[in-house]
Amino acid sequence: MTWYIDEGPDSDVIISSRVRLARNLEGTPFPHRLDQQRSKKIALEITNAFFADDAARRSQFLTLDLNELSQEDQMSLVEKRLISEDLVHKDNWHRAIISRDESISIMINEEDHIRIQSMRAGQNLENAYEAAAETASVFEERLPIAYSDEFGFLTACPTNTGTGMRSSVMAHLPGLTIAGAMRPVAESLSKMGFVVRGMYGEHSKSQGDLYQISNQLTLGISETDLISDLKRMLQQLIEQERNNRVTLYDQQPDMIENKVMRAYGILRFARLMTTEEALSLLSDVRFGQSIGLLKTVSRRDLNQIQSAIGPASIQKAHGRLMTPEERDRERAKIIRDLLK
Amino acid sequence: MTWYIDEGPDSDVIISSRVRLARNLEGTPFPHRLDQQRSKKIALEITNAFFADDAARRSQFLTLDLNELSQEDQMSLVEKRLISEDLVHKDNWHRAIISRDESISIMINEEDHIRIQSMRAGQNLENAYEAAAETASVFEERLPIAYSDEFGFLTACPTNTGTGMRSSVMAHLPGLTIAGAMRPVAESLSKMGFVVRGMYGEHSKSQGDLYQISNQLTLGISETDLISDLKRMLQQLIEQERNNRVTLYDQQPDMIENKVMRAYGILRFARLMTTEEALSLLSDVRFGQSIGLLKTVSRRDLNQIQSAIGPASIQKAHGRLMTPEERDRERAKIIRDLLK
Repeated sequence: MTWYIDEGPDSDVIISSRVRLARNLEGTPFPHRLDQQRSKKIALEITNAFFADDAARRSQFLTLDLNELSQEDQMSLVEKRLISEDLVHKDNWHRAIISRDESISIMINEEDHIRIQSMRAGQNLENAYEAAAETASVFEERLPIAYSDEFGFLTACPTNTGTGMRSSVMAHLPGLTIAGAMRPVAESLSKMGFVVRGMYGEHSKSQGDLYQISNQLTLGISETDLISDLKRMLQQLIEQERNNRVTLYDQQPDMIENKVMRAYGILRFARLMTTEEALSLLSDVRFGQSIGLLKTVSRRDLNQIQSAIGPASIQKAHGRLMTPEERDRERAKIIRDLLK
Repeated sequence: MTWYIDEGPDSDVIISSRVRLARNLEGTPFPHRLDQQRSKKIALEITNAFFADDAARRSQFLTLDLNELSQEDQMSLVEKRLISEDLVHKDNWHRAIISRDESISIMINEEDHIRIQSMRAGQNLENAYEAAAETASVFEERLPIAYSDEFGFLTACPTNTGTGMRSSVMAHLPGLTIAGAMRPVAESLSKMGFVVRGMYGEHSKSQGDLYQISNQLTLGISETDLISDLKRMLQQLIEQERNNRVTLYDQQPDMIENKVMRAYGILRFARLMTTEEALSLLSDVRFGQSIGLLKTVSRRDLNQIQSAIGPASIQKAHGRLMTPEERDRERAKIIRDLLK
């Protein structure tokens, strides 16, 4: 079972939590300054250190050399946010190590030598951080990690230096979005040191009322403080979103029911559907489900649908590249079958 | 059971057939030149002639004095096309006599003294004409009807003189409409002496791909020839429409299925719906039903829905005037209940 089908704490608003840690090898140039041969040597060194004498870990993780994967498999990893799009396009020797439940992924020779990412369902930043830190400690015990007493962990990009950590959540904010409150909320979060982005990171537009929220800082503050800050802010945001949902429904029950039930009707019967429309309709249904309008649909159903309808997931399931229209047809079918 | 729930011949394309006959009393000015007192005297004379010594007819027909009806009842009669909107707004003494199955309606003191209208489901112009003629013969036997050997029946407007007849059908033409062929078809019908209009007569726009088609002429040609001409043209139009539907589905099965099933999904789940949207979605569903895509929906179901969702029908069912939003909510509910 992959982690993202699960529900987690506060999962009516927070879909998932993610913590990323960057680590680099001491005395070795950062990946962008490594040639093919040297990057390969380092990648193997990191991989070997991770698996050394550990049969359990070997069976728990998959090592993927991206240039050996089909295009649809590469794209599927990006779509699931297990690897970055940057990693796919790197020229030097790079790979990913991914846990079978897809909750932990390690990118080797992306921007940093080692990038560990840990994901959890719902608002579960602490667990996500623990798992990431535990994975990082394997490397820290077995490899010379670049660390400065003054700055902390050293990274290729100075904005990551310090903890080398970035923690973020994927929040579903239809209440704030429908009420037209997202812009002021994003601005005020930004002043508080948080960043609000669309679903696929920087510069991406929000789809399906989904927003990635992370802290800006990495330097001069401890990991636990960073996570506490983010959690504290999220508690407020979650309350605000819940209040908005209830208020919207109280004030315009017909409008909201109409929006939710139409979305459900279209998802249940359409024969062609783009990713963008699907995300938007799923957002309406998820909203409706959270305020009790759709008793026959569970949050797990919605998570399952959401994880299956990206262009790459669909192509991976078919084992081949497909035209957009073929994907739209297949997407509509997947949704119909899962909503039955 | 009202006639319009039934299916009739060729009812995949022709929803209903209508024949109207105009008759006037000899030696009496046309209605627009009658004062209140005189128009009342004539209306009573016509009514008495119709019902004289005929208990069966008395129980089969209702006599409605429009100024005694509530606004929602008046509007409902107009919406069902049992009376014209003009009749509601006449100043002189006017009334309607309507058969209980709503297949025959007689307007007294509309443009002419007597206007008989007969409606049938499907392409059934001959039956509709027979029923209208039979009703007209009652008046012709018992009242002095204005008739000239040279011109035929005399009418208030010269365009009706001769047979005093107008025959028309309501055609559902989604195949021609989606294929973008309606404009050339309407133009060529016009050259052949037929008129193509929207659902509610002259100057009205087509809603739900529904078109009223009638002949232009009334003078210098017999009733049976007029009906034969219209029927002959309709046979071609019906074939053309059916071919267009099949071709569209053959060429773009996904697009058509998607259109039809989405419409069905929205109709089944929406909580608010305007008449215009409902007619448009019902058109898609009717189209889908006719090519075998929706086996659970019958043409009778669709007729029943279509007859129940006009603003006036909804208000009449509730016995009061309602706001547009109240009607939109009730319309969506009626459709959901009937599609269950």
